[in-house]
Amino acid sequence: MKLIIDAMSGDNAPAEIVRGAVSAARTLDSHIEYILVGDEDTVKKEIASANGSDFIGSRIRIVHADEVLTMEDDPTDVVKKKKKSSMTVALHLLADGEGDALICAGNTGALYTGASLIVRTVKGIRRAAIGTLLPFDRPLLLLDSGANINVTSEYMEQFAFMGTVYMKKLYQIEMPRVGLVNNGAEAHKGTPVYVETHERLKMTEDICFVGNVEGKEIPFGKCDVLVADGFTGNIILKLIEGMGSFLMKRMKKMLFSSLATKLSAVLLKKQLKQFKQDFDASEHGGSPFLGISKPVIKAHGSSDARAILNACKQAVRFTENGVIGEIAQFAAAYQRNVKSTGTESTPSVVSE
Amino acid sequence: MKLIIDAMSGDNAPAEIVRGAVSAARTLDSHIEYILVGDEDTVKKEIASANGSDFIGSRIRIVHADEVLTMEDDPTDVVKKKKKSSMTVALHLLADGEGDALICAGNTGALYTGASLIVRTVKGIRRAAIGTLLPFDRPLLLLDSGANINVTSEYMEQFAFMGTVYMKKLYQIEMPRVGLVNNGAEAHKGTPVYVETHERLKMTEDICFVGNVEGKEIPFGKCDVLVADGFTGNIILKLIEGMGSFLMKRMKKMLFSSLATKLSAVLLKKQLKQFKQDFDASEHGGSPFLGISKPVIKAHGSSDARAILNACKQAVRFTENGVIGEIAQFAAAYQRNVKSTGTESTPSVVSE
Repeated sequence: MKLIIDAMSGDNAPAEIVRGAVSAARTLDSHIEYILVGDEDTVKKEIASANGSDFIGSRIRIVHADEVLTMEDDPTDVVKKKKKSSMTVALHLLADGEGDALICAGNTGALYTGASLIVRTVKGIRRAAIGTLLPFDRPLLLLDSGANINVTSEYMEQFAFMGTVYMKKLYQIEMPRVGLVNNGAEAHKGTPVYVETHERLKMTEDICFVGNVEGKEIPFGKCDVLVADGFTGNIILKLIEGMGSFLMKRMKKMLFSSLATKLSAVLLKKQLKQFKQDFDASEHGGSPFLGISKPVIKAHGSSDARAILNACKQAVRFTENGVIGEIAQFAAAYQRNVKSTGTESTPSVVSE
Repeated sequence: MKLIIDAMSGDNAPAEIVRGAVSAARTLDSHIEYILVGDEDTVKKEIASANGSDFIGSRIRIVHADEVLTMEDDPTDVVKKKKKSSMTVALHLLADGEGDALICAGNTGALYTGASLIVRTVKGIRRAAIGTLLPFDRPLLLLDSGANINVTSEYMEQFAFMGTVYMKKLYQIEMPRVGLVNNGAEAHKGTPVYVETHERLKMTEDICFVGNVEGKEIPFGKCDVLVADGFTGNIILKLIEGMGSFLMKRMKKMLFSSLATKLSAVLLKKQLKQFKQDFDASEHGGSPFLGISKPVIKAHGSSDARAILNACKQAVRFTENGVIGEIAQFAAAYQRNVKSTGTESTPSVVSE
């Protein structure tokens, strides 16, 4: 298996990205190879600093790219102004079958645009969704977490199915429970597209729909897959991040307010570290783009070497577990069903 | 001043509601009178248990109501099936000028429906909004937090203005900063109605618009007024609540995991109490309904006596500070402007 890694994109690129790849080459199964995309000299130097030069030519290959697509670039630049960027080159390598999966910590919008246009969506899938794993007591996949601002109930129904497949295959949950984010429990709650989606999800036999999920229920394990439009999903995702840092800051302030509390902070040192780690989403890798015809993983912009290593592990499982194959079979059945009935409802039989 | 209090609605009604009213009668300015609405015998008994019988006839008056509107009732029942409920009777007392402000801890949807239909919205205000004060380092007013699921940019522009007036008058912020919740900083981000609202807010001279606010920025004081549609606002509000309890639970688990951490919990006792209290929204009272022609405050369903006392203090400030007068002047100018220009943009001059 070959993992393509955009070595130049992300807040800590290229150093941390390359360190992550070298650490993956060192620790993960030896059948995995790594294609690092970026300025050849720079990447080579970073590999050397990470003591990974021995891997070059065996486990690690460098593919040169002249440019870097930044956070300031327009998402469409991935196929327009910056065709020579490491991100675009990496996407073409994936599309051309030079590698099996792609990991990138760069501009999310550009990666999504490039993945949809260069790698393409699975036939029959209306829109790919960005899935994000939320680090609660049980892992929870939120999708869409930001790509599709304007959605239809059909998109959201497909998100529900794709999320189900991902959680089943990667987290061994036999029948993942799907919830629909909403402002109330009742079926009539929410905007018209949410009411319609609720109706569709209730009718779909291939997922386990547990109904609407209110904001306060999100952290408490009511479902394994949480379906949202990209606007709401993005606000949820970032608010969870913001609340995590806010409460952590308040806690620190509390712990350093007096001599007694400082002593307690010492007593809690190990637990505080664990507390922080438990809440670190990068333990789970990055965000899978579900509905793209090959595995694309968006690592967090601030990814360090450990996060990249985790994203590599995730990419291997994503590739080996047949997630995309099952999504493709679903989409084909979905399309047949639309053709035969003229309505766009879910097929009743999908592959196992 | 006369405060009307629905004594029968809320998870802890009537006991805690009545206790809160008695405690207000005991501690707040003596020119304030309290009209408790509910079953006369029950309320009288509760007043006696709260040692407040002396106030009856002087500071406290009871208005009898046969029924109680519950959480299970449909919001429209406030004007249909349960016209004799304490909530409906209380709303009519307010509409008829028998009291100056209303506090109720019952069914939010019903109270909003009743307030809009019985007390009525301010002339020129398209829709009233539910404001909620979020307990961050600086108080932040989120509106709409759940009433208007489908909005127009005009509604949201009016929310921005109403929120500005409330924070100016009640929190002495000279020029409250208004943010628009969104999935990104740029003006083109969000659904069409958000893009339109951004455009409108940028053009409005009477508010201080600081631009879009992303989820992770919400807790960090970027603005004093956060504008959202009711669907998104409700999810934000409840997610903040959920994240608060989730992290509190995790922290407790951490503090009771070993002997050493239990010792630290003892050392932290005072701080933990403060931590919890700092994060208790009911310290600020309840949620004002902005755009209704008289002050209506929705206290949290789980309000205890202290929360009701705080809501009484808030009702007094809401009433005395001329919030509604300024909203009415704005709305009148807004209407004139719509008439004269044919477009629905904000008037450039509003009262100070």
